[in-house]
Amino acid sequence: MKHIISPLDLSIQEMGEVLDLAMDIIKNPKKYCEVCHSKKLATLFYEPSTRTRLSFEAAMLNLGGSILGFSSADSSSAAKGESVADTIRVISSYADICAMRHPKEGAPLVAANFSSIPVINAGDGGHNHPTQTLTDLLTILNLKGRLNNLTIGLCGDLKFGRTVHSLINAMVRYDNIKFVMISPDELKIPTYLREEVLDANQIPYKEVKVLEEVMPELDLLYMTRVQKERFFNEEDYIRLKDSFILDAKKMKNAKEDMLILHPLPRVNEIATEVDNDPRAVYFKQAEFGVYARMALIMKLLEVEVC
Amino acid sequence: MKHIISPLDLSIQEMGEVLDLAMDIIKNPKKYCEVCHSKKLATLFYEPSTRTRLSFEAAMLNLGGSILGFSSADSSSAAKGESVADTIRVISSYADICAMRHPKEGAPLVAANFSSIPVINAGDGGHNHPTQTLTDLLTILNLKGRLNNLTIGLCGDLKFGRTVHSLINAMVRYDNIKFVMISPDELKIPTYLREEVLDANQIPYKEVKVLEEVMPELDLLYMTRVQKERFFNEEDYIRLKDSFILDAKKMKNAKEDMLILHPLPRVNEIATEVDNDPRAVYFKQAEFGVYARMALIMKLLEVEVC
Amino acid sequence: MKHIISPLDLSIQEMGEVLDLAMDIIKNPKKYCEVCHSKKLATLFYEPSTRTRLSFEAAMLNLGGSILGFSSADSSSAAKGESVADTIRVISSYADICAMRHPKEGAPLVAANFSSIPVINAGDGGHNHPTQTLTDLLTILNLKGRLNNLTIGLCGDLKFGRTVHSLINAMVRYDNIKFVMISPDELKIPTYLREEVLDANQIPYKEVKVLEEVMPELDLLYMTRVQKERFFNEEDYIRLKDSFILDAKKMKNAKEDMLILHPLPRVNEIATEVDNDPRAVYFKQAEFGVYARMALIMKLLEVEVC
Repeated sequence: MKHIISPLDLSIQEMGEVLDLAMDIIKNPKKYCEVCHSKKLATLFYEPSTRTRLSFEAAMLNLGGSILGFSSADSSSAAKGESVADTIRVISSYADICAMRHPKEGAPLVAANFSSIPVINAGDGGHNHPTQTLTDLLTILNLKGRLNNLTIGLCGDLKFGRTVHSLINAMVRYDNIKFVMISPDELKIPTYLREEVLDANQIPYKEVKVLEEVMPELDLLYMTRVQKERFFNEEDYIRLKDSFILDAKKMKNAKEDMLILHPLPRVNEIATEVDNDPRAVYFKQAEFGVYARMALIMKLLEVEVC
Repeated sequence: MKHIISPLDLSIQEMGEVLDLAMDIIKNPKKYCEVCHSKKLATLFYEPSTRTRLSFEAAMLNLGGSILGFSSADSSSAAKGESVADTIRVISSYADICAMRHPKEGAPLVAANFSSIPVINAGDGGHNHPTQTLTDLLTILNLKGRLNNLTIGLCGDLKFGRTVHSLINAMVRYDNIKFVMISPDELKIPTYLREEVLDANQIPYKEVKVLEEVMPELDLLYMTRVQKERFFNEEDYIRLKDSFILDAKKMKNAKEDMLILHPLPRVNEIATEVDNDPRAVYFKQAEFGVYARMALIMKLLEVEVC
Repeated sequence: MKHIISPLDLSIQEMGEVLDLAMDIIKNPKKYCEVCHSKKLATLFYEPSTRTRLSFEAAMLNLGGSILGFSSADSSSAAKGESVADTIRVISSYADICAMRHPKEGAPLVAANFSSIPVINAGDGGHNHPTQTLTDLLTILNLKGRLNNLTIGLCGDLKFGRTVHSLINAMVRYDNIKFVMISPDELKIPTYLREEVLDANQIPYKEVKVLEEVMPELDLLYMTRVQKERFFNEEDYIRLKDSFILDAKKMKNAKEDMLILHPLPRVNEIATEVDNDPRAVYFKQAEFGVYARMALIMKLLEVEVC
């Protein structure tokens, strides 16, 4: 039995298999519409996240399975002081697979240690969010046709944004990847990523403060939300949140086939005027998120098309 | 693709088709139990409403479809500052149709403008609630056998009660409809309804303050709850909420086949002693609400019995 | 039509039938995977309880049925002042069976009086919780092979713990049952249970304050959580909550085939070091809870394997 706690829990080969399966699901969704018949997914969301939760639920329903769970800690046994270890042992009797979001880093890993069903980390604090990474990779693969030979711009909150960290970790495994980090000094990527991931793997990257100047180089621009809940005080948040807003004017210098990705929800870091640009693929990315999760659920449950 | 934001989004002919379909569903529910197999309904409730949400969910399950969604804004991405326009574009990838309740008037209309799946307004502030109106019409049609030649009493909060406004708008399209408005001065119907709907269509109506005196004239009595959340201060609410309570004594003067309708929840505006009167059809009306929504979902998804 | 409000609503014969059915479901779960196709369970939880709610939902999904409902009073019509009697009459149109948890004792009984679908009490205040009792009996029957000739230790909060009260009421109907009550003076079983149930049925029992001294006698040890919400003040709770903690050292004196049961959630009344003891069957008990509820739902809906 396999759990997915970090994006790197899938080897590059397994990741390839999941992505290939997702690509086939996109082409022939009907082929897969009953493969999880009589299987149940539990969505254990100790922290609200509509998008991620509904994406998992849509994925399981698309596979013919069913869903149960909770959408906030208030309505869970956590309020009565139960440990994650105990909860998952009980949930193991109720469902065949589970997706867990938790405000505490490491909670899904603890769950995995006590679970008798596959656990998928659906986001733990500022830590990991592997199905977002899987979604990002599927989007890139589907719309660029490759996962190597890419110059990837990462813009916004690179310090706290877990999706960015996970994406870096996942992309350094492919050939000829370059990163361009675009952020204010206060929101640069953490030192461990710089040293242990980028430098250790000899990945070329540069860090800039102005989006315009690097725009023409990028094959992808990954925008991120400046999340209020990650800040220590309101003042810093207000000062920094509007930096690095993408608008139609800035898009003029971008390559014709550059893709704009965003994990969503977007607040104002991408002006709505950009939405109709064919290069803006963030809503398509949300759609790919369902297919990525369908493939991952199938892989972990080891179900196949008959 | 069609959305239902206002009760008038269905022409009188389309309304007739939906009502006919609902009548057939009532007669042969089993015929329809798989027509939405592998279709998904998203219930997006930014404001809690158990009855309406569960009625939609029961409708979709009765059609063999499945459901996902959220039941309050706290557990949605709205808390992270996402716009309704962005949310619906993402939900469009997760579901085949959605029902949205929102405290802000107009939010479902905004959603419809950005959605690639049919949007049903499940109530927006004091504004519209088209499936309640559809339910009311189905109840009348089923139990009176007609939608014309009716004298309709409307009692209680006629100022803020959106179900009453929608019912007036819907019924003026049928022949020989008369209204009797029964309310305190403070809770009379708004001027725009009087001028633009009733007077403009030359619909006969009168306004009274005493329920007893008009009782014998009525073919239908539509009772409404005096909703606390619509008042500006507690004092007004307490002074007015008990006006116009229907009890067994008042029912003595009513026609033998008069119907009592109520959109529910009822607080105390209908004494429980009335519940066993065969003319009290408000719980039956709740049941018809499921059939009305089944028919509407089928119509919007353009599914048919094979 | 039958409702289950108290564990004693099932005669000893009916209880036997439900348990036999549950035993067969455990052996052949696939045989039952479609028996409730197109049936709907409504989970009406006016008080949060993840475990109980998800157990009911898993049960209904395992039977091929579907689920709808709410998980807290905030998102229900109760917030608008609707009575339980009105709510259940409406829910009767939405579902085929319902499970209700309510903070007020007696609320599910009121619901049953107005319902046209079977109502299962899923816990009402400190009162009844019949499906927990059914789960406990199934666990004992399955793992001990009998429901008679047992010495049952009950430990912890015996005053407020409804699961203990229900278990006593249920077990006194079988032959040769002895109870050993282990609790501080403040948390002894209520007088009515002592007089009207134990003494009235001439059931042998003793009351002690030290777990160790009675350990070797027990066939079963039923541990309970000291629930904070049942206490009148914080001080009493803190003073008493750690009494009577079960650990590996205390287990040394227990019979080799003694079973440890616990309704869960467990806080710290059982040290986690006990979890790997084969006699610790509380997580297995949670699993049996699903089978017990499957059998009960089938019984109340009168569905059978074709």
